[in-house]
Amino acid sequence: MQAGAELQRTLWFDDENRCLKVIDQTLLPFQCAVLTLNTLAEAADAIVSMKVRGAPLIGITAAFGVYLSLRADPDSLVSACEVLIKTRPTAVNLRWALARMQTSLQNVARPLRAQHALLLAQQLLDEDAAACSAIGDHGLTLLQDIFRRKLAKQGAGAVLNVLTHCNAGWLATGAWGTALAPIYKAKLAGLPVHVWVDETRPRNQGASLTAWELGRSHVPHTLVVDNAGGHLMQHGLVDVCLVGSDRTTAAGDVCNKIGTYLKALAAHDNQIPFYAALPLSTVDFGSVDGVREIPIEERSADEVTHVQGRDRDGVIRQVQVSAPGTAVSNYGFDVTPARLVTGIITELGVFPATPDGLRRLRSLSPEASSGVDH
Amino acid sequence: MQAGAELQRTLWFDDENRCLKVIDQTLLPFQCAVLTLNTLAEAADAIVSMKVRGAPLIGITAAFGVYLSLRADPDSLVSACEVLIKTRPTAVNLRWALARMQTSLQNVARPLRAQHALLLAQQLLDEDAAACSAIGDHGLTLLQDIFRRKLAKQGAGAVLNVLTHCNAGWLATGAWGTALAPIYKAKLAGLPVHVWVDETRPRNQGASLTAWELGRSHVPHTLVVDNAGGHLMQHGLVDVCLVGSDRTTAAGDVCNKIGTYLKALAAHDNQIPFYAALPLSTVDFGSVDGVREIPIEERSADEVTHVQGRDRDGVIRQVQVSAPGTAVSNYGFDVTPARLVTGIITELGVFPATPDGLRRLRSLSPEASSGVDH
Repeated sequence: MQAGAELQRTLWFDDENRCLKVIDQTLLPFQCAVLTLNTLAEAADAIVSMKVRGAPLIGITAAFGVYLSLRADPDSLVSACEVLIKTRPTAVNLRWALARMQTSLQNVARPLRAQHALLLAQQLLDEDAAACSAIGDHGLTLLQDIFRRKLAKQGAGAVLNVLTHCNAGWLATGAWGTALAPIYKAKLAGLPVHVWVDETRPRNQGASLTAWELGRSHVPHTLVVDNAGGHLMQHGLVDVCLVGSDRTTAAGDVCNKIGTYLKALAAHDNQIPFYAALPLSTVDFGSVDGVREIPIEERSADEVTHVQGRDRDGVIRQVQVSAPGTAVSNYGFDVTPARLVTGIITELGVFPATPDGLRRLRSLSPEASSGVDH
Repeated sequence: MQAGAELQRTLWFDDENRCLKVIDQTLLPFQCAVLTLNTLAEAADAIVSMKVRGAPLIGITAAFGVYLSLRADPDSLVSACEVLIKTRPTAVNLRWALARMQTSLQNVARPLRAQHALLLAQQLLDEDAAACSAIGDHGLTLLQDIFRRKLAKQGAGAVLNVLTHCNAGWLATGAWGTALAPIYKAKLAGLPVHVWVDETRPRNQGASLTAWELGRSHVPHTLVVDNAGGHLMQHGLVDVCLVGSDRTTAAGDVCNKIGTYLKALAAHDNQIPFYAALPLSTVDFGSVDGVREIPIEERSADEVTHVQGRDRDGVIRQVQVSAPGTAVSNYGFDVTPARLVTGIITELGVFPATPDGLRRLRSLSPEASSGVDH
């Protein structure tokens, strides 16, 4: 397989030039440009402007942002974290990564902090890549089970149809992705997998990122508007839903890109399994009721009133889709109540989306003994 | 109120120039251009290319299309209906209007057919306008009830929040609209009504038509992406959902623009009333199970891969939002099972979305005695 998913990276540290490199996701799928980040401000801006996005990747970028800040000013640990925490309010990985950086670095002598920060950020990146690979392995087992049952019913020629929302692939993580990791592993394992890709308005991460990612790894996929999933599920065209998460509570409520809840409702109404795939760093053990407790980011009206794409002449431009002056509301995320979630796929295995399931997950986590409540 | 909804028309017959005039809905909200239709081919093309759209309006346009054909060729009744019936497969109003034209005209002497066809088409238009006005009145009673209960709970300052999907306003009908008629009547009656407008991908009829219509009549509204409705409902920001329909079955299953089902699921999950507003001509008494029986139109991939809007220089153009070659599926409609529909608002009153409710509706319909099964 050309451009195998296992080799793809969206962020790396350039040792030679001592800078952070990231794919600029706002130019995909038409240009795969690599950005160089040299300063805290550049790292923060990359997150705010969504040049890097995806819950795990935001956390990793922020960790490198702390390093970039410390190497310019060894006294800037607290202030750098303050700048970075404000870039995106919903993804808990950001808070988690910054808490980990701060906890680890505050006891390090100032002259050594930058060097330690770089090692720590690199470690976060490597850990996330490993976690996503493990998520892929656990998810693969699930997909194999679902496919085996379908094969028994339909016989040869059966295809495993997965629906996903937004982008939770390697573009969003250290490697592999969360929701897409099981799909890539399924493809590598020879399963005939096909993915329904929600376009994911307003920013179209499905159309511009997920379809592009899957295309690069030759995973068969079909782009649909966000409105289509219910119809597909009613007609037996979806075998399982797999999404990522920006924050999952101790009760199993899954906060993810706006519109996820609607797909979970449709899956539930049609008895289709609905899984969220996420690393431990996405779990907010400090919150329970996702609908009430998770702050939902409100983003710019422009994202709704304008759509970016490529015109006939190959120029990337924005067009306005509503009359000037139209009032807009633009919530970035919604919360899928645990009762609609079949399970949570993590690097430690698959757990029920229940307080018990999450408790078990926590008890197995390496941080359980250290007592860190992130 | 300037540009009151009660005065707005999207289609009319120009007596002086003997032609049909329609607003070209593909140029809204940026240009309100009026098209002249002189031939059957022009009428059929206007429907296919969605210059006119909306279930009732398609039927009316087709009726005038029969007239345009007959005045050119008095022998073309059957062939004209054959051309027109193929323009859109899902909307039952099209079938209904053409059946009515054919039944009425086949016994008319050929030289007189064109003249009769014009009278009949004009009658269909007037009847639809009257039906929509009555839908508005019945829907208004519902909205007043819902608002009264909200006022009792929240006190002064309460606003009635309605969510709608796609466009079922006067642009889609002879006048007033179906789903929007109760909203316009509520505004005229002094109710503090606010509308959440789903943008309605892929063709963005919410963003480009509904928001524009409501703006012209000064009805407060907020544009949201299709993904947002579930979140809004979870947070108490929607009091009632009102949608139109392209075909409703004898069991109360509501076929409407793709994505309607997802909103109905969210309304049900949050105990929010969900109504479909439609004239009798939208009911297909010959079908029961909407999910199995209603043919769902599949439309061009371009509608998903490309978005039309206005660029900075004021030029209306299309931009591509996914990588070239991306596979696409584009179903135009979905079916909301009757169990998720609180009621059907028609020109004859509000009925439960049940076989009994639809039976009662049918028994009250003027066609019940004539035995027409459309």
